[in-house]
Amino acid sequence: MFLNEKVGAVIVAAGQSRRMEGQDKIFALLAGKPVLAHTLSVFQESPQVDDIALVMAEHNIEKAKELVKEYNFSKVIAICSGGTLRQDSVRSGLSALCDCGWILIHDGARPLLEPDSIPEGLEAAKLCGSAIAAVPLKDTIKEISPEGLVEKTLPRERLISVQTPQVFRADIIQKAYQRVGIIATDDAQLVEKLKLPVRIFSGACANIKITTPEDLLMAEILLKKGR
Amino acid sequence: MFLNEKVGAVIVAAGQSRRMEGQDKIFALLAGKPVLAHTLSVFQESPQVDDIALVMAEHNIEKAKELVKEYNFSKVIAICSGGTLRQDSVRSGLSALCDCGWILIHDGARPLLEPDSIPEGLEAAKLCGSAIAAVPLKDTIKEISPEGLVEKTLPRERLISVQTPQVFRADIIQKAYQRVGIIATDDAQLVEKLKLPVRIFSGACANIKITTPEDLLMAEILLKKGR
Repeated sequence: MFLNEKVGAVIVAAGQSRRMEGQDKIFALLAGKPVLAHTLSVFQESPQVDDIALVMAEHNIEKAKELVKEYNFSKVIAICSGGTLRQDSVRSGLSALCDCGWILIHDGARPLLEPDSIPEGLEAAKLCGSAIAAVPLKDTIKEISPEGLVEKTLPRERLISVQTPQVFRADIIQKAYQRVGIIATDDAQLVEKLKLPVRIFSGACANIKITTPEDLLMAEILLKKGR
Repeated sequence: MFLNEKVGAVIVAAGQSRRMEGQDKIFALLAGKPVLAHTLSVFQESPQVDDIALVMAEHNIEKAKELVKEYNFSKVIAICSGGTLRQDSVRSGLSALCDCGWILIHDGARPLLEPDSIPEGLEAAKLCGSAIAAVPLKDTIKEISPEGLVEKTLPRERLISVQTPQVFRADIIQKAYQRVGIIATDDAQLVEKLKLPVRIFSGACANIKITTPEDLLMAEILLKKGR
């Protein structure tokens, strides 16, 4: 393997669990195992992934170290402290993976990602440099004015809902994250701002992001069903 | 009450339950009661609603009659046969409510609507003629090319995800539905095509549309939680 084919994963788990009614979603138990342990297992067991940088809120770093030790997540080479914005957290994780040629970025709170999404994402990213997991939209989406009036109904067949993993050639994502002062809701958006192409690959409806206590229950249901 | 203040509700329940693994979602039990009975109860018990037109798939009409009788849904004045497209079904329901001044259109498969959404929707519709229940988007949405490349990230703060009830002044929605040959994914889109204003009012995340068996389990969870 050439050095620049090394694959690193940034697992972003520094969110504030604001909508979790006091629980810390990342350590909440899902089928008896913390959400974060589910997520990390998929990357640990992936033959494509070499190194993992885990990004945690400052007050959770000790707890994360214990979890990594308990589950023997040997690919975790760094546990970094996250920032106020998701972007700051990702940047922090990226800085720990500078010898990787390819980078996966994934939300720690999406424990149900399909193991296959890792090779699929890498394959898609290799076609143009960047690729993101995406699913079609179920609902009609409209654009509204600040006054709450509908401006237009968007063409649903051309819209996708974005998930993670998002996969990038390392130099592209490092460059995208060097730019400051831009707020983005996902990583690919920063690449788009460099006018570089981003491809989609197939995410899964079960790959939900745990945000509320109900999401956690839903994740239990999906897990029992084998996703 | 003036004749034109009469409020009718079209409950659209003629879908094919394609993703329900053999179950008919509209009669599936939710906390021991059919999904459709939950939905109809909210409209039956609403002091604002006068008449209900229920639209069913042809093969479910008898079953619907029994359900209406069993639960004593006295406001159901018509059980109509639905069409191939959702639009055809709504048109069928509208034709049974021609003496109403205001029309609510609601998906039968959204049993968890908040009772308050009925007066709120009517109030919003009275401001400009048409109003739809909407919730903010959780995920990043992107527009893609037919080749699967990202064209742009949409401004999430200006996007909403559309639910029902959708509420209309009767003459507006009747006119919108008289136009044929236009495919729409929701009712308001037909009004938008007439260049008439549509206002949004606050839907609820719990007001999910039951499409898959997992949605049904989720609805159970939400019901237990009191939504």
